[in-house]
Amino acid sequence: MPNKTAPIGIFDSGVGGLTVFREIMHKLPDERIVYFGDTARVPYGNKSPETVARYAGQIVRFLESKRVKAIVVACNTASALAMEEIEARSAVPTLEVIKPGARSAARTTSNGRIGVIATEATIGSNIYANYIKTLGENLIVTGKACPLFVPLVEEGLLNDRVTDEVAKRYLTELIETDIDTLILGCTHYPLIRETIKRVMGEKVKLVNPAHETASELEKLLKANCLLNDEETSESESKYHFYVSDGAEKFKQFAASIIKYGILATKTINIEAY
Amino acid sequence: MPNKTAPIGIFDSGVGGLTVFREIMHKLPDERIVYFGDTARVPYGNKSPETVARYAGQIVRFLESKRVKAIVVACNTASALAMEEIEARSAVPTLEVIKPGARSAARTTSNGRIGVIATEATIGSNIYANYIKTLGENLIVTGKACPLFVPLVEEGLLNDRVTDEVAKRYLTELIETDIDTLILGCTHYPLIRETIKRVMGEKVKLVNPAHETASELEKLLKANCLLNDEETSESESKYHFYVSDGAEKFKQFAASIIKYGILATKTINIEAY
Repeated sequence: MPNKTAPIGIFDSGVGGLTVFREIMHKLPDERIVYFGDTARVPYGNKSPETVARYAGQIVRFLESKRVKAIVVACNTASALAMEEIEARSAVPTLEVIKPGARSAARTTSNGRIGVIATEATIGSNIYANYIKTLGENLIVTGKACPLFVPLVEEGLLNDRVTDEVAKRYLTELIETDIDTLILGCTHYPLIRETIKRVMGEKVKLVNPAHETASELEKLLKANCLLNDEETSESESKYHFYVSDGAEKFKQFAASIIKYGILATKTINIEAY
Repeated sequence: MPNKTAPIGIFDSGVGGLTVFREIMHKLPDERIVYFGDTARVPYGNKSPETVARYAGQIVRFLESKRVKAIVVACNTASALAMEEIEARSAVPTLEVIKPGARSAARTTSNGRIGVIATEATIGSNIYANYIKTLGENLIVTGKACPLFVPLVEEGLLNDRVTDEVAKRYLTELIETDIDTLILGCTHYPLIRETIKRVMGEKVKLVNPAHETASELEKLLKANCLLNDEETSESESKYHFYVSDGAEKFKQFAASIIKYGILATKTINIEAY
């Protein structure tokens, strides 16, 4: 049985999941966290379900070697394609980001028309549309894959006319469907939130699944009597970062996303798990 | 000792190496070829030397399990970062793409100013500049990483104003250095040759290392008495394609690059090698 003081494990294909890490860090400041980014095999969004599931299985084994008390699948693509594998492998409670995002969108919409932007793999799985249908029969979901957004974010073109032009192309057909709510269904997308907002217009509300995921994580830990109620000491480093490649590059990118000084990032060989 | 009739092994991080396959297929029509694309871990261009070398080592083991008589490293990034690993692991002659491309550029230039565009990892290694210096002390080399070109090609934006805009940004500083020769130092780039040509202008000659690589392969096989001199039968399928993920997607992309009908592509688990 895991200990309350044990860390939460969070993983993503790379740096994008830090947007989820950031929300959890704010919501649950007493929790220890182990973060893993699969930078040696990023991106996941254009890979097959079988491959993403195999990668996720290795990552669960790695996180369990760090004795985590719960696992948050911060990556939408892994949430869409690999939960069966992850739940089968994991001995601790797991949480993914799609259902929280979908529920938040269903509460947000007024006209019942919801858009989802995500990777090719997530959109191809139809998981957002299928789940939202169970929340309300009349909800209409339109999905759109935006495969260039991840490389544009990784290139740092967060406020740039190339990103604007690409966003206009991807989003025009969504605007035409008269949605009033748009799910940012990939952890990289909150980083170009301003561009997406500008293109979609003020009337469309953007849903970042990370907020809701942090709230649901709190509930999950409470329900399993796993919420940490011991204070952590100031001097202790509560957050540990691991990647499968390029620890230094990860550290620099991470520092630009979250204000917490990331002290150390270690590279591990994920294929060995 | 490998057999003359054994296949040549060619590998790349994904589909880009098919531009090298295409040249070799035309130059050496009697040769059998086994192609491997590491689509489960693509791209290589933003990964570390250690990771790319580990991946290349696994691929050499896979190709040798197919009893190849020689190995062509069609990927510039692997050529830049992993030749030591590849040569140490390989029992058959190997050929990379950087030296052939560099020699071709050194012959092509009139004013001694050569540009190289490639992935971050290839440019970061400085390998083109270092090697070209050995070909002529007075040659001046300017390198420029173009990390968005690969995702733009994979998105199929081969003739597109987004690609034009990105190309203008990457290439403007190269135009200012007054180069007369530009090496396409990534196997994806010949696929947006027209865009690059338009931006660079008529005066700059573009060098595709694949041409020279095919010629050098012929020499290498001759020197090792490995050139196939037996005719292959019409009915035999001379070309075999393997990927680490998404065989169907690869097949479709491949069909758009090379006119030869790719009959079958198999997915293998490269991590097991």
